[in-house]
Amino acid sequence: MTYSFVSHLHCPKCEKTYDVDEINQLCDCGAPLLVAYKMDELKENFTKEQLAERKPDLWRYHELLPVKNEENVTTLGEGMTPMLHLKKAGKDMGISNLYMKDEGMIPSGSFKSRGAAVGVSKAKEVGVKELAMPTNGNAGAAWSLYSAQADIKATIVMPVDAPEITRKECVAAGADLYLVNGLIGDAGKIVGQAVADYDLFDASTLKEPFRIEGKKTMGLEIAEQFGWKVPDVILYPTGGGVGLIGIYKALRELQELGWISEDKMPRLVAVQSTGCAPIVKAWEEGKTHAEPWENASTVAFGINVAKALGDFLILDGIKQTNGCAIAIDDETLLKELKFVASSEGAYVCPEGAAAFAAARKLRNDGWIKEDEEVVVLNTGAGIKYPDTIEVEAPILQKDEKVVR
Amino acid sequence: MTYSFVSHLHCPKCEKTYDVDEINQLCDCGAPLLVAYKMDELKENFTKEQLAERKPDLWRYHELLPVKNEENVTTLGEGMTPMLHLKKAGKDMGISNLYMKDEGMIPSGSFKSRGAAVGVSKAKEVGVKELAMPTNGNAGAAWSLYSAQADIKATIVMPVDAPEITRKECVAAGADLYLVNGLIGDAGKIVGQAVADYDLFDASTLKEPFRIEGKKTMGLEIAEQFGWKVPDVILYPTGGGVGLIGIYKALRELQELGWISEDKMPRLVAVQSTGCAPIVKAWEEGKTHAEPWENASTVAFGINVAKALGDFLILDGIKQTNGCAIAIDDETLLKELKFVASSEGAYVCPEGAAAFAAARKLRNDGWIKEDEEVVVLNTGAGIKYPDTIEVEAPILQKDEKVVR
Repeated sequence: MTYSFVSHLHCPKCEKTYDVDEINQLCDCGAPLLVAYKMDELKENFTKEQLAERKPDLWRYHELLPVKNEENVTTLGEGMTPMLHLKKAGKDMGISNLYMKDEGMIPSGSFKSRGAAVGVSKAKEVGVKELAMPTNGNAGAAWSLYSAQADIKATIVMPVDAPEITRKECVAAGADLYLVNGLIGDAGKIVGQAVADYDLFDASTLKEPFRIEGKKTMGLEIAEQFGWKVPDVILYPTGGGVGLIGIYKALRELQELGWISEDKMPRLVAVQSTGCAPIVKAWEEGKTHAEPWENASTVAFGINVAKALGDFLILDGIKQTNGCAIAIDDETLLKELKFVASSEGAYVCPEGAAAFAAARKLRNDGWIKEDEEVVVLNTGAGIKYPDTIEVEAPILQKDEKVVR
Repeated sequence: MTYSFVSHLHCPKCEKTYDVDEINQLCDCGAPLLVAYKMDELKENFTKEQLAERKPDLWRYHELLPVKNEENVTTLGEGMTPMLHLKKAGKDMGISNLYMKDEGMIPSGSFKSRGAAVGVSKAKEVGVKELAMPTNGNAGAAWSLYSAQADIKATIVMPVDAPEITRKECVAAGADLYLVNGLIGDAGKIVGQAVADYDLFDASTLKEPFRIEGKKTMGLEIAEQFGWKVPDVILYPTGGGVGLIGIYKALRELQELGWISEDKMPRLVAVQSTGCAPIVKAWEEGKTHAEPWENASTVAFGINVAKALGDFLILDGIKQTNGCAIAIDDETLLKELKFVASSEGAYVCPEGAAAFAAARKLRNDGWIKEDEEVVVLNTGAGIKYPDTIEVEAPILQKDEKVVR
């Protein structure tokens, strides 16, 4: 049985191709490489019906993933996260079919584990022994953990302001962790130097071709969870934007396989913070690339990315699907976070809260219609961000009692 | 279609029965009440094959759960957590079939969400409007969140030393939170008073009959994940012990349904801390009930329970399955926690780490054989316990570089 129908790597800018079984980073032209599959063979050998008997993790789609030998799979059970119909929150927003895909319920509590699971597995398969990456926290945590399982040595550089729990995860996994007085872009420069100095594999966002394949499984799952139809709108908190690019790629591949209709694509929405909104600015100005954002700052740390290497792919995905890009301020997203927790019992991450706030705003603006099916991606567990909630609780002595 | 085949409540001590659709707490004799099902009707109307088409959450077993009307189900997508074969850790321990069921991948990052999902749903069904409970943190967080979805007002009392993130979860969900300078037993006394003063539903462990039904789904899932066979040993970190009681109940029910063989039960192991080991002491002394543990203290806060109301059920479950009870010290469990994270990439909670350390010790003692199938329950996500890992990481300036 063929475990993967992966074919080769190709550049979406200059169309040069590369061998999928060799260690590759960016294309010679500087663009990120994408993974291509043998779609004709897939059509004949991979059916929806086969999925019914498989475990509820992302490896159920292994034919459409790049790892050729199952023995190279590093896994912690990631994938097939819940798709929840949020009736109370939806009613409040005037969206009767509001859904949350909860990526908090995944190893390390963040959707970054999808990219890490597939990225590390394929890195192992092509012979990587040491990797390095800059991170806003969650990706570094995920890559450290999967690298530990794969016996790959990981060097992680993150801003000192990144969520503190992610430091613990890196260290628990045995990674070499460095903090930097700066933003993820500064961490990226330090990683670039380390990669050159010590001949490491550069696992920076989109500088390796395989994390996008892990992220794309969100799109495969959304289609499967909607019964091989697609919702009308998908809102995605956008930093590096790999998830949005991956979801778009997944849906195109499913169309090519004939698993979903070619007549409908969900409108993809890139949600950013008003404190760091390069994609939104480029979108509003009708540009195909984004300018770096100056003095980026937001409580939604995971989307504090001043310059995304895949900006042109994000903007293209939005455009092709008649989507849009929208920015939310911190005060609004924190208010939405508390609303979702207290109405639905879902303690989401600030990035996910921004996407909820965006859904509310787009509904108010009429861009989202009342009965459309709307999916919000909550990209991580709220418990990784304790600072989003302030606690004032009475401290009782043993002989005291509750007074209401 | 009948959603639930629940029959009634009964007392395992005095055998008195109660109506399952009324608000009940303990039996008049003071013992916890258990839920009974119409097993004959279940045998005719519920088959393994029906499960294949259902979502991977615990409500897939709704016929064997107590909620009668699906509209009362409060859910965040809990259940069907991964069952991972840990080859590297197993090799190190000399256990070739070592598995981890990872309960960190569940809403609020702790297995307490199983009990809360079912407990709150049934509380809603019988008309509860306000509940109160003492907690070591995670249960209070879970019950707060599900109560929010169910429009039930929750009052939570936890020790000041409980994991800090759990305070945030309670407050985010809109619960009334109180901290107490003491242990969970002290919190329990304060809750008891509040229940009397304000006529609240007492959701303390085993004082309501339904959380055990939620916890039992761990046993149902283990059986399903092993192809309706059972492993040889299940190790379970034991505080209140509801999970162990629930797993035992689940397996007995599956035997009665004929879904698993009556010839084999897994040997159930109650894992405690040397700083709080009342069940281990009672087990070693051959007693049927446990004495309260004096000056209880351990880093594995979730199992810091000096006196469990269900002690006699735990001890019976161990005895009936030829299991055992074992205590692990904090230093040993913290070492095991780092080992599991750095070898498998699984950042487990300290309670789960204690269960891993217990597996290692029981293998060394020869109680576990080399080729036996051994399941360790990791009852929560390591990210809820940041203090288990110390971080010493260099802080770089923007113009500095990594020096190895």
